[in-house]
Amino acid sequence: MKRIEKLLERIITRVNLNLRDASFDVRPYIRDIVPLDQLMKFYAFYGISPNHPIHFHFSNSNLAGSYFLGQCKVDNSVLYKSDIRGDELKEKGAVFHFRGTDIQLEDDEVIWIKDSFLIKTLVHNYSHNPEKLDLFLIKNSIAAHYANIHGSPIEGCFLGPFSTVDLSSLHDCVVGAFSYLQVGELSHKKIRPGRIWIRAKDMFDFDYRYNPEILRKYIAFEPGKGTMGMFMDFAEDRKLDFQRLYDVVHLDPHISMPKGASINRYALLKGKNHISENVLVAQRAFLESAWLGKGANAQENCCISYSRLESFDITAHGATIIYAHLKNKVFVGFNSFLQGKSDTPLVIGEESIVMPHTIIDMKEPVSIPPRHLVWGYIRNNNDLKEHSISLEDLAKVSGEISIGAMRFKGSGEQFVKAFQHRVEHILEANGAFFDGEKGRGHAQKGQEISFNIIQPYPEGPFKGIYPAIDINP
Amino acid sequence: MKRIEKLLERIITRVNLNLRDASFDVRPYIRDIVPLDQLMKFYAFYGISPNHPIHFHFSNSNLAGSYFLGQCKVDNSVLYKSDIRGDELKEKGAVFHFRGTDIQLEDDEVIWIKDSFLIKTLVHNYSHNPEKLDLFLIKNSIAAHYANIHGSPIEGCFLGPFSTVDLSSLHDCVVGAFSYLQVGELSHKKIRPGRIWIRAKDMFDFDYRYNPEILRKYIAFEPGKGTMGMFMDFAEDRKLDFQRLYDVVHLDPHISMPKGASINRYALLKGKNHISENVLVAQRAFLESAWLGKGANAQENCCISYSRLESFDITAHGATIIYAHLKNKVFVGFNSFLQGKSDTPLVIGEESIVMPHTIIDMKEPVSIPPRHLVWGYIRNNNDLKEHSISLEDLAKVSGEISIGAMRFKGSGEQFVKAFQHRVEHILEANGAFFDGEKGRGHAQKGQEISFNIIQPYPEGPFKGIYPAIDINP
Repeated sequence: MKRIEKLLERIITRVNLNLRDASFDVRPYIRDIVPLDQLMKFYAFYGISPNHPIHFHFSNSNLAGSYFLGQCKVDNSVLYKSDIRGDELKEKGAVFHFRGTDIQLEDDEVIWIKDSFLIKTLVHNYSHNPEKLDLFLIKNSIAAHYANIHGSPIEGCFLGPFSTVDLSSLHDCVVGAFSYLQVGELSHKKIRPGRIWIRAKDMFDFDYRYNPEILRKYIAFEPGKGTMGMFMDFAEDRKLDFQRLYDVVHLDPHISMPKGASINRYALLKGKNHISENVLVAQRAFLESAWLGKGANAQENCCISYSRLESFDITAHGATIIYAHLKNKVFVGFNSFLQGKSDTPLVIGEESIVMPHTIIDMKEPVSIPPRHLVWGYIRNNNDLKEHSISLEDLAKVSGEISIGAMRFKGSGEQFVKAFQHRVEHILEANGAFFDGEKGRGHAQKGQEISFNIIQPYPEGPFKGIYPAIDINP
Repeated sequence: MKRIEKLLERIITRVNLNLRDASFDVRPYIRDIVPLDQLMKFYAFYGISPNHPIHFHFSNSNLAGSYFLGQCKVDNSVLYKSDIRGDELKEKGAVFHFRGTDIQLEDDEVIWIKDSFLIKTLVHNYSHNPEKLDLFLIKNSIAAHYANIHGSPIEGCFLGPFSTVDLSSLHDCVVGAFSYLQVGELSHKKIRPGRIWIRAKDMFDFDYRYNPEILRKYIAFEPGKGTMGMFMDFAEDRKLDFQRLYDVVHLDPHISMPKGASINRYALLKGKNHISENVLVAQRAFLESAWLGKGANAQENCCISYSRLESFDITAHGATIIYAHLKNKVFVGFNSFLQGKSDTPLVIGEESIVMPHTIIDMKEPVSIPPRHLVWGYIRNNNDLKEHSISLEDLAKVSGEISIGAMRFKGSGEQFVKAFQHRVEHILEANGAFFDGEKGRGHAQKGQEISFNIIQPYPEGPFKGIYPAIDINP
């Protein structure tokens, strides 16, 4: 155990050094939030398939319960139940477009996690930092439960639970619980909990802040106490169900799989579920009595219960959908929490966009019209008015508007276009449009993966530490 | 599948090249004996523990169902359900005594298997070739079902099923089914099936040959037909029982474990078994209603059914014991097959030595007296007379004797001493004498091992081939 304690100490020291300007001490936050003995109990695994370029390298690290796909390096880090997906990394020779400039990659890109501690964190996509296109670096950083690090290299950062950093690049920042950032570059900033901030330089700026008192009920993170609130309770409730997936080596799929669809071997399906063509169900996704239409996807850590999702619906990483009916091509962003009632499901109209980190906790029947953008905290139709706008109206905005606690500046048209473009891209990348020949995406590529189990030293001073493992094609 | 077919072709070509003087074509022997699709079905695994120095390296190989412990390299090879134990390899600085000379190792020893095809083969121990002490090389070789390669580097060899090469060094040899060789160096020789040959230069020479017609009933190996006979049927019968060990990731031991004892996680225990202090039960050992006394060991691929083994009994790799009662410190050598009757068990007296590859297929009650050496084919008391000698009488032999089909030359005393010394060494290495502090051996060191599962590419041209994997402390 000695080495793993030294490793944690090393990480704390390095993160604190990066955050010295912010006078932020990570120690009381991370101490005791993951008991050391849990780190010994779980194995890690990585996926090998003919469809994903691989290079794995692990050294001086603990990887309890973590999952790797693609090209990933982990050095001097602790990853606890984190999913690291390098299956969209850029390849050597690929061209990255950045503000009118074409940049060609000289090397295959790799995700490199160094001197960091990630807890139930999802790392996915590729570096959007034009300065470091071949390296998706996570260094001297800590991410708490159910954070998402998506296309965002970070250095010297502390990410609170259920926070998301998306298509950005952060340096020496503290990101509060349940905050969502898609802001390009950010340096030496402290982001309060529950801030939803999307900024594209010279184009638009969307900013929403949750009422801290309300947010506390759903998610709170306090020094020495760890992560609390309904989101955590909800996630913990599903733990036992997942256990059986990890007990057996091979698992027979217990559902008939239509053409082009795939259900990850580490996804959990309970009750009677319906899966259509080109559906993707990712690892640690939880489905219970869910109906998924053609090309719909259920991403990592999401939960879809007693709900019907029509064609081309997207449930992003960490989103929860309970008692809801989503019409075609609805986007539900990262870590959103949508809960209708068993007798009156929440209805979301065609092509509507549920912003990342939206909470819809329905207290009266609510129906979101088609082609609307919704965000923030919604319990009833009154809230809905203050937390939504039609895409048509938003596209007309130029300048500044405020709706409730949301402030928008810039081009509404650009904002809507950017979102719609992203929805199309996600569907395409996930293989939603696969026609049997063209349009292969994750749903098709994910059908043939070997899941390989690795474990750390079981005893002695290196207990919990993995030997140095290097895996090449 | 293309790559694995090319790999098999590469191995056949290389082995045939080495065996060109013997005009031996391995192709008809190995074609179809392991169907390619079996190679895809199984995962391999390796063990990590604080007690075994590790360095694993696998490249361009298939390792279906194989097990590795210690320092092992596998390149361009196919290992099907083979156990490769590098847990007794010599370490850098160790001193090897050879005929009065002390040789110090300049590097850690490693087992390196290159351009070879091993089927259900056990590789164990360390190189006894004084010219290559830091490299236990198996190159351009094929070993059929249940062969044992024990402390014996081999190059350009073909080992028939249930054959054993022990503490030797072979070059360009064909070893027939069920032959046992412990002969020092051997080059360009063809050994017929069922020859038991133990030779120590200038000291002794023990040579026994099975009647080929009798042997056929137990084991036969024919070009184009594969391995047949009672031994194979018997081994195949246990297959289904073993299956469940491989289905789950963690297995709870279902038996109370006394001090100093260990049962490998991939051993199978059926019925009610008794395990005493310091007992070692190795992987793929099969126990059914077995009683094992203090310090007894059950080595890889052995089978002990409805039998009682008193203290310090050794059941070597691949040996089978059914309806028998072994008194204290009985040695049962590699691949021996001992079968009593349910109402009259075969009795073996204290400190008796059952030579490797002995068949006792009891047709009338047989009792082997204490301190006797037995070998060859025994069905009744008449056979016993022709296949045994007391250790006391053997120790008096100097020169040449024949008993039945056995011919012995040299010093009986040296022969008995060598065997007794080896028995003590095996017990010591396996931890039979562990007192809670001193005398730690495999039984104690094997208690804390992480078993890590690895799988090959599941689809595509590389289907069945493992990526290059390198694992270091």
